[in-house]
Amino acid sequence: MSDLSATSRTRHSRLREQGRTDRADLFAVLNAGFICHLGIVVDGDPMVVPTVYGFDSGHIYVHGSVASRSLTSGTTVCVTITHVDGLVLARSVFEHGVNYRSAMIYGVPRVLEGEEKLAALECLTEHVAPGQWDYARRPNRKELAATTMLAIPLEEASVKVRQGPPEDADDPHDVWAGVLPLSTSWREPVTDPHASHPVPDHVARRTSGDQGVV
Amino acid sequence: MSDLSATSRTRHSRLREQGRTDRADLFAVLNAGFICHLGIVVDGDPMVVPTVYGFDSGHIYVHGSVASRSLTSGTTVCVTITHVDGLVLARSVFEHGVNYRSAMIYGVPRVLEGEEKLAALECLTEHVAPGQWDYARRPNRKELAATTMLAIPLEEASVKVRQGPPEDADDPHDVWAGVLPLSTSWREPVTDPHASHPVPDHVARRTSGDQGVV
Repeated sequence: MSDLSATSRTRHSRLREQGRTDRADLFAVLNAGFICHLGIVVDGDPMVVPTVYGFDSGHIYVHGSVASRSLTSGTTVCVTITHVDGLVLARSVFEHGVNYRSAMIYGVPRVLEGEEKLAALECLTEHVAPGQWDYARRPNRKELAATTMLAIPLEEASVKVRQGPPEDADDPHDVWAGVLPLSTSWREPVTDPHASHPVPDHVARRTSGDQGVV
Repeated sequence: MSDLSATSRTRHSRLREQGRTDRADLFAVLNAGFICHLGIVVDGDPMVVPTVYGFDSGHIYVHGSVASRSLTSGTTVCVTITHVDGLVLARSVFEHGVNYRSAMIYGVPRVLEGEEKLAALECLTEHVAPGQWDYARRPNRKELAATTMLAIPLEEASVKVRQGPPEDADDPHDVWAGVLPLSTSWREPVTDPHASHPVPDHVARRTSGDQGVV
């Protein structure tokens, strides 16, 4: 399991230089954010829903309300995670692009129950909001029942990365070219007007901002 | 056309309070970023591809290589744009969430040709990289032929927004609660080592950062 699979849809048929096949590249992309775009097929048409995720060595976990039609079991979904690092401003419009890191994961989700469900919920919570599983109130029976947890295997995946300057230095159009970097960072926590406690360390720490976030 | 349509899939069946139906809300979300997640159905399974977009009053435009199987005409696609504004850290894990603005657009893309194609490419370029259509070299015939431009009508769309503090102030679990804001900003341009011109004003200006970017 050290390499990502290469099925017909995850093999890098275009822009080959941007494809990564090392499993570590997949985890780097997963680690750098907490929002994915979950693609499902509803009545034959695609539906793309933004949602939070967590993951471990074998699965990515997404959750939602039982009422949400976006969470069905037994059919393939596509989970895409994208980090945008900057705009590539080339000499030609054609060579303009984006510096990014992205992962696409295909799989058939399995609905989790019992201990597995609780463990996945902890995993997701700790990925999105580290420290909150122990600090906040854990879900009671009713809340757990209202939550669907899905596990999608990290088996069929495609990772693409584009970094660096434009690639049209040989273009005769002689103008400035370069990259306009984009960065995402946490700001100071905003305390709920009804809360009377100080910001806990595990939250305050995130603002120091040495981790990727979207 | 002042209101967004409410078909069965864009009607806000859950989390009703987060749904927006004003067309201005759709354009606010479109204006605040340049990356969308394009969902298509390939061999019955969903595929979600991150890509840049542009838009005008009637359409959203996406492009790509002719070789990309993600750009097919005649079937419905779903284009989702998501801006993440922060984490909602509630008293209970169950009430944790994300402050965000998102739009989902469903439509059947039309492949553009000729003048329409060029106009859409200018629209997209100027949305992603304002000023570059006049500054960089415009696409030649060969480059245009290698580009597919798709127009998706802005007719069937759903906009959702969640902002503000957690909503479980009545929870007996007495801990800190609040929002951890997330913000995205342009950094100083990085000049291509092969470029000998100074950063043009239209690029330098973006770093002042008063516009939403992802």
